[in-house]
Amino acid sequence: MLGGGLLAAPALSRAQTNETLRTIASLRTIHGDFSDKAIPDADIEQILGASVRAASASAMQSYSIVVVRDPEAQRTICGYRGSCLLVYFLDYTRSIATAKRLGHEFAPDDMEWFVTGSTNTMLAVQTAVIAAKSMGIDSLLTNGVHRGKMERLWEMLGLPQKYCFPLIALVLGYAAKEPAYKKGRLNGPGIVHRGTYRRLTDEEADAIVRQYDDKALHLGLNEEWDKNGHKHYLDWFHKAWIGRNARPGETQILQRLRLAGFVETAGS
Amino acid sequence: MLGGGLLAAPALSRAQTNETLRTIASLRTIHGDFSDKAIPDADIEQILGASVRAASASAMQSYSIVVVRDPEAQRTICGYRGSCLLVYFLDYTRSIATAKRLGHEFAPDDMEWFVTGSTNTMLAVQTAVIAAKSMGIDSLLTNGVHRGKMERLWEMLGLPQKYCFPLIALVLGYAAKEPAYKKGRLNGPGIVHRGTYRRLTDEEADAIVRQYDDKALHLGLNEEWDKNGHKHYLDWFHKAWIGRNARPGETQILQRLRLAGFVETAGS
Repeated sequence: MLGGGLLAAPALSRAQTNETLRTIASLRTIHGDFSDKAIPDADIEQILGASVRAASASAMQSYSIVVVRDPEAQRTICGYRGSCLLVYFLDYTRSIATAKRLGHEFAPDDMEWFVTGSTNTMLAVQTAVIAAKSMGIDSLLTNGVHRGKMERLWEMLGLPQKYCFPLIALVLGYAAKEPAYKKGRLNGPGIVHRGTYRRLTDEEADAIVRQYDDKALHLGLNEEWDKNGHKHYLDWFHKAWIGRNARPGETQILQRLRLAGFVETAGS
Repeated sequence: MLGGGLLAAPALSRAQTNETLRTIASLRTIHGDFSDKAIPDADIEQILGASVRAASASAMQSYSIVVVRDPEAQRTICGYRGSCLLVYFLDYTRSIATAKRLGHEFAPDDMEWFVTGSTNTMLAVQTAVIAAKSMGIDSLLTNGVHRGKMERLWEMLGLPQKYCFPLIALVLGYAAKEPAYKKGRLNGPGIVHRGTYRRLTDEEADAIVRQYDDKALHLGLNEEWDKNGHKHYLDWFHKAWIGRNARPGETQILQRLRLAGFVETAGS
């Protein structure tokens, strides 16, 4: 039987341990506290070489990666800067170009291509994160590419309008200082289901609310959620955090996905 | 300067090497050749514990994982079976349940929630893949969950209709025999861009066509693409492989995303 009640991620002593598991256990996000130390080019190349080893549906590698060293460009692209930024794109334009050279038309123009291609991309991203960490290089993954006017990315980077979409920014660097604590993670009911899906009971939902409130578990985003009269972390989260950037109408993401050709019901 | 012309993934000798980089370099997909050897429950738990360490936007862990041991159920869900199947879902229902207990309404009903949530999910998936490999456990990632009637997953597993979507199946097991070769990967023009995005030249596109044709590089899906008169691997790929399952009209994926609430223009 697997234990179903764990809420923090398990310690590494239970089954096996090894350097890779320790690397994964040591993953953490660095928010704007990267030192000025440069990552050697050879290390970036090593990370890129590791990244492409991720599995890829139909061996398509339906992504591309823009490597950005310029600090100001990094900040404009994603809102942060480190020693090096890797911007990961879902990208079919290479496959379209090679198809065209052979006289084939290839138009990956539906949501299935988007979901499959973005899956391939994200597998490559996390492989880069883990490879970097094993080399002592910390990271920040941010969807800052989706904030502000997304059009800036097309202008700055010269992206194709179609069949190319920025998914995530991976900022790499060395931590200027060690974070004060390690983040916790939920790992029990509602995260892991055994055999079939099981909805949370009210008691389990209440237990999760309490766990987010327990500052020793470091599950949330913000350790000072109780500063403005919020009774629970999740009160702060729902009242003050999510929805803070919401705009009425279609999201930019849907608009850009339609422009990029991935929404097959365009105009319907 | 970083070398821009590499096509196979670089060897590990150039910069650093370590156990994690060697684990990543050893990743491979096992297709239906899993042995009957069982993965101990403690190892599955270790893999799950590693998986949740991945970064997660707004610390939301907007996923859940169904662990399936039954071989027939595995096959029905994704078309393959190993010792254990982990089905990864983009899933906001836990967050909705905890919000509701506190009197908040939470409706993650647009494409931005889908993209952000699926990103979180895939980061966790690849962390599981790498953790497993470090423990000697091989894997197959398959989007078989999106083939056939997707409705079967809702029926078999009891999934919520809304705000929950199966993204990928991770089959875990021990390889029955070693694959005959290691897959190659593109790693040059069209994959990695320096500073800004650069479209392939015709010469670069032609070079990629030739690389797919070079059987020693093992870049493609199929080593016998030339059996039915195809001149190039990519001829086989475009004529015989992609589009083989295409159906006119909307993809099931778009239909299910709309049912799940993630397409904000439903009915427009």
